[in-house]
Amino acid sequence: MIRFNNDYSEGAHPRVLAKISETNFEQNDGYGVDRHCEAARAIIRGLCEAPEAEVQFLVGGTQANATILSALLKPYQGVVSAETGHIAVHESGAVEATGHKVLALPGVNGKLTAETVDAFCSGYFADETAEHMVMPAAVYISNPSEFGTIYSRAELEALRAVCDRWKLVLFLDGARLGYGLASPENDLDLPFLARVCDVFYIGGTKQGLLMGEAVVFRDASLARGFRNMMKRAGGMLAKGWLLGVQFEEMLRDGLYFDLAKEAVRLAMRLRGAFAEMGVPMLMESPTNQQFPILPNAALDILRAEFSFSTIQKIDEGRTAVRFCTSWATRAEDVETFIARVREVVG
Amino acid sequence: MIRFNNDYSEGAHPRVLAKISETNFEQNDGYGVDRHCEAARAIIRGLCEAPEAEVQFLVGGTQANATILSALLKPYQGVVSAETGHIAVHESGAVEATGHKVLALPGVNGKLTAETVDAFCSGYFADETAEHMVMPAAVYISNPSEFGTIYSRAELEALRAVCDRWKLVLFLDGARLGYGLASPENDLDLPFLARVCDVFYIGGTKQGLLMGEAVVFRDASLARGFRNMMKRAGGMLAKGWLLGVQFEEMLRDGLYFDLAKEAVRLAMRLRGAFAEMGVPMLMESPTNQQFPILPNAALDILRAEFSFSTIQKIDEGRTAVRFCTSWATRAEDVETFIARVREVVG
Amino acid sequence: MIRFNNDYSEGAHPRVLAKISETNFEQNDGYGVDRHCEAARAIIRGLCEAPEAEVQFLVGGTQANATILSALLKPYQGVVSAETGHIAVHESGAVEATGHKVLALPGVNGKLTAETVDAFCSGYFADETAEHMVMPAAVYISNPSEFGTIYSRAELEALRAVCDRWKLVLFLDGARLGYGLASPENDLDLPFLARVCDVFYIGGTKQGLLMGEAVVFRDASLARGFRNMMKRAGGMLAKGWLLGVQFEEMLRDGLYFDLAKEAVRLAMRLRGAFAEMGVPMLMESPTNQQFPILPNAALDILRAEFSFSTIQKIDEGRTAVRFCTSWATRAEDVETFIARVREVVG
Amino acid sequence: MIRFNNDYSEGAHPRVLAKISETNFEQNDGYGVDRHCEAARAIIRGLCEAPEAEVQFLVGGTQANATILSALLKPYQGVVSAETGHIAVHESGAVEATGHKVLALPGVNGKLTAETVDAFCSGYFADETAEHMVMPAAVYISNPSEFGTIYSRAELEALRAVCDRWKLVLFLDGARLGYGLASPENDLDLPFLARVCDVFYIGGTKQGLLMGEAVVFRDASLARGFRNMMKRAGGMLAKGWLLGVQFEEMLRDGLYFDLAKEAVRLAMRLRGAFAEMGVPMLMESPTNQQFPILPNAALDILRAEFSFSTIQKIDEGRTAVRFCTSWATRAEDVETFIARVREVVG
Repeated sequence: MIRFNNDYSEGAHPRVLAKISETNFEQNDGYGVDRHCEAARAIIRGLCEAPEAEVQFLVGGTQANATILSALLKPYQGVVSAETGHIAVHESGAVEATGHKVLALPGVNGKLTAETVDAFCSGYFADETAEHMVMPAAVYISNPSEFGTIYSRAELEALRAVCDRWKLVLFLDGARLGYGLASPENDLDLPFLARVCDVFYIGGTKQGLLMGEAVVFRDASLARGFRNMMKRAGGMLAKGWLLGVQFEEMLRDGLYFDLAKEAVRLAMRLRGAFAEMGVPMLMESPTNQQFPILPNAALDILRAEFSFSTIQKIDEGRTAVRFCTSWATRAEDVETFIARVREVVG
Repeated sequence: MIRFNNDYSEGAHPRVLAKISETNFEQNDGYGVDRHCEAARAIIRGLCEAPEAEVQFLVGGTQANATILSALLKPYQGVVSAETGHIAVHESGAVEATGHKVLALPGVNGKLTAETVDAFCSGYFADETAEHMVMPAAVYISNPSEFGTIYSRAELEALRAVCDRWKLVLFLDGARLGYGLASPENDLDLPFLARVCDVFYIGGTKQGLLMGEAVVFRDASLARGFRNMMKRAGGMLAKGWLLGVQFEEMLRDGLYFDLAKEAVRLAMRLRGAFAEMGVPMLMESPTNQQFPILPNAALDILRAEFSFSTIQKIDEGRTAVRFCTSWATRAEDVETFIARVREVVG
Repeated sequence: MIRFNNDYSEGAHPRVLAKISETNFEQNDGYGVDRHCEAARAIIRGLCEAPEAEVQFLVGGTQANATILSALLKPYQGVVSAETGHIAVHESGAVEATGHKVLALPGVNGKLTAETVDAFCSGYFADETAEHMVMPAAVYISNPSEFGTIYSRAELEALRAVCDRWKLVLFLDGARLGYGLASPENDLDLPFLARVCDVFYIGGTKQGLLMGEAVVFRDASLARGFRNMMKRAGGMLAKGWLLGVQFEEMLRDGLYFDLAKEAVRLAMRLRGAFAEMGVPMLMESPTNQQFPILPNAALDILRAEFSFSTIQKIDEGRTAVRFCTSWATRAEDVETFIARVREVVG
Repeated sequence: MIRFNNDYSEGAHPRVLAKISETNFEQNDGYGVDRHCEAARAIIRGLCEAPEAEVQFLVGGTQANATILSALLKPYQGVVSAETGHIAVHESGAVEATGHKVLALPGVNGKLTAETVDAFCSGYFADETAEHMVMPAAVYISNPSEFGTIYSRAELEALRAVCDRWKLVLFLDGARLGYGLASPENDLDLPFLARVCDVFYIGGTKQGLLMGEAVVFRDASLARGFRNMMKRAGGMLAKGWLLGVQFEEMLRDGLYFDLAKEAVRLAMRLRGAFAEMGVPMLMESPTNQQFPILPNAALDILRAEFSFSTIQKIDEGRTAVRFCTSWATRAEDVETFIARVREVVG
């Protein structure tokens, strides 16, 4: 069985594991105030060209999303998200558990447009019954999105302008940020993100770490009380340096980006192969997730050898599925898979 | 200014006020365990032909909705509602404030269909990632709906069957229940509601009381701990007998239903008049809320003399608005209004 | 049965009821933005000599406490209260339901001292593990307290200084505020309270209204979003003017204070009588609640004719109980009671 | 600097790291349903002689405590804890964040007694205002406690009886469970715990794992929906097998217990040395935490070479501090420390 069903089926890059072993008997302060977290913070601030940024480390994405949003919203405020956003669908109500509504709006290719957010806010603030409705106060986007699509610099600038207009916090879920930045279609970079967003995170779990997300607040005033929030949410890792060590190792010389680049290269190989075979895609994704629409009969055959996720029934005979590459994907497995698809779909 | 903008612009029916005055210096136990609450409970159980029902009184609808749902749901469960449902739109996130997601589904004329709920639950329970999504465990409907439409017996039975299939609680918001039961198109009655729903309430605030909603649980096991929940939610009225006294007076001889009938008669008069004038309706409502689509110019003129609610922009020149009648509406005001509309729209 | 068990056993003062009847068929805007609420706000601002104050009306005390605190605290912050404070004991966890810890500290005669709060905050902010503990950010006091005792001007000024030192919000629960201000030992007044507190409320439910608490924020910046919070908490009364009408009537010419004065006079009569009889008191209360310690045998006899609350077992033979007077207490009932106690306790 | 300030200053036992490396490129299912989690579950069920037990893995203790309690309590219920309990003091209000009050009762040496819990529940359920107070429905204990003390079999049986009497869930926080079971004074074992508790956890973070707590529910009915709760709380680790692998390795041949035994042996060495030196202890702890009371002058000197936690000021000249041993403590460091203390205190 070769797994393409997600991008977190393996442990961590060997260099990460080696570093964890190497530092294993160091005695470190707990809770993320140790030398490695500090070193990782310094590297991240440098990469973001944001010396004022506040950086905190959390274990996972759902935890990060709910903790960040509940730290930034007032109780009567909600967060705008695409209907397909991870917080709107796949986090078991973690945001609602903190008392906030996810204001789900229609997206385009998994992305929120500035126009949609603007129209929604415009409607809210003009409504005579606004006090009876949840006030939009944050915008949640993910880059890459849940459908692998990415935002352009222009799109984010437009969202930023809308956020400024309506006093919304702009929050970017970067669980797969590296794969986004490594896309051939990408025009973003970390310094831009650190300016355009109020808060975002650099995903580790899906990008070669055992676990960990590095949350970057544009400035420390936004992060006031955030460590208390982390602890309150059960998200302050006792051995916090484990997160610091991993980000330090992955980011110190660009390994994080190199791994992402190779994963995206393999995804583009997949995309190209599907295109050659005339397989339609549910979504044109320029990142590590690919969404071909395949005949059910073919899927039944492939399932015996490969794992993938079912996304959506297209019609009686066809289903959209998802194949992910990752930092751990082997080129030969991709070729084996393509060859097999050719036989089956051919 | 004559107000048709809602059905809670006046105080209470004079008989209700008289009864409050008459009992004013009785000394009663607080918190709804007094003789009047008990008497009202007995009347309601009788009207519902439900001797096992548990009845509790709350002050208002949002409070009732959030308290009931948070009492019935486990933390990881959510409530299915039409996208236009009051809890989904107009309660400032009161349900989310208790930690639960409102799972908003498309409605038909403001109503949830059994098919929609069934398909949604079927999808949820078949999904391999169900643990990552909010589990549907309750269905919220309002009768009449936010658009004045009402459920038929057959529709509720179908919803009940779906609820049984997926183990969902069926909860009916009856803030305007009387106006629904008084509709010429209604085929429901209280005994049926007390059987088909797990919990519903008989609205008082919009039906001639100063305030108050009578919550009816099909049986006491569903209401375990509900009084603690009421207190915890700040919803246990110190002078609870005030709610008992009002329901007692309104329900003891059918005044509640007589008032509703007259209000609906006046609404049907309005509906008929709009029809005669060729005014289209946003929604065909057989109850006390009417939703004509009128030219903006006409609305500007009418606004000087009458109040009403803006519902939806239809196009550049026309807007759907809402006119409510209520227990307090005077027939002559309706005629004055109709005459004026004829002049303006005619 | 003559009831002294609490101060909310009767409806409302006849003038309040008359005013509700008189205004019954006025058509008013809902949700507390009507002319009566505005009039009551103006009166309250005048009485408080606080033209900048924001005034909102809620139905009851538990609702007011939880809504105010959850509006003012950040998620990781808690509220300091005396261990005997209403929010710490008798609100079914309403504050915790909003996600906040009540930091209960030992009180003195039911009151918090500035020293206690200062020492607690000093400990918290000096603690190296402060991030792991709930940050104190508000102080809850009630005046009169749950034991009828009252704060002096000097005590409140000391608490204010501590609040300023540690950046805490000072919140005074005035469910029985009138009875406090009417005490022969009182040296507070409304203008002082409106300066020394960030927020307090003028209780109505226990002071002659059917229901209602008037929440006064020192300035509007503290109340940002408070109306959304009210709605979200199910605490925005549809017929909000009912609260406005009642406060307007009670406050326009001092009726509120006159009624309180008479209630306290009767309580002092009780206190004097107990003293004459040599009955010890659990607490020396200068307000409408009195806490005699009586032999159980005597209580058993009295219970047949009078109702009162059990507070605390003192020893095998004696129990501390509570007798309340109120705006509705009749002087002759107090005399009847005293005469009977004399016979029984002799 | 040699650290004795806590028991989570190092990474993981080398065998644990080796196993993580060894399994690194296996492709595993996410979210804790993989072969390693299953294997670890089987081992734990075996060690507990509890084939019906449900086992789930969480990353940390605060997360475990809040998730377990919020899964088991109804919204209006609270959890009884010693005033010194971790959930009552050092989790930033994580339990309150889920809407539940921690009902803190006085403990004896950091432990709750059956008598205290029984008296509290007896008072609650007899109170006429019980509906206005938070209902006790769970008992939280930690073994070892926050002061290193441990429960005896008889004490737990007595607590169990009280829980049965009042229908309370008994929950044991075993963050340091191994150190408790390894104590020379211990008379508990896992099969007993799996019978006497409704739920408990086997701590990993402080016992030689990188991170992880294994939650054991006596039977699966208690764990209904628990995985949804985990996800909702941000506590479902994407690479869940990392937790399974670690527990599998630590528990398969008793390494967990061997490490704990050695850590406790070293702690007893410390205790003995302090006793010889006549140093008084704040608490007599038979586990890996030791609480000597030392002169401040001595502490100032020791602080330059050793780290430890400040617990409590005893008087002007002396402070109680905490020294922890752990699976990673080296015997020579303990001897170095003792020698130095002798010089300083001697």
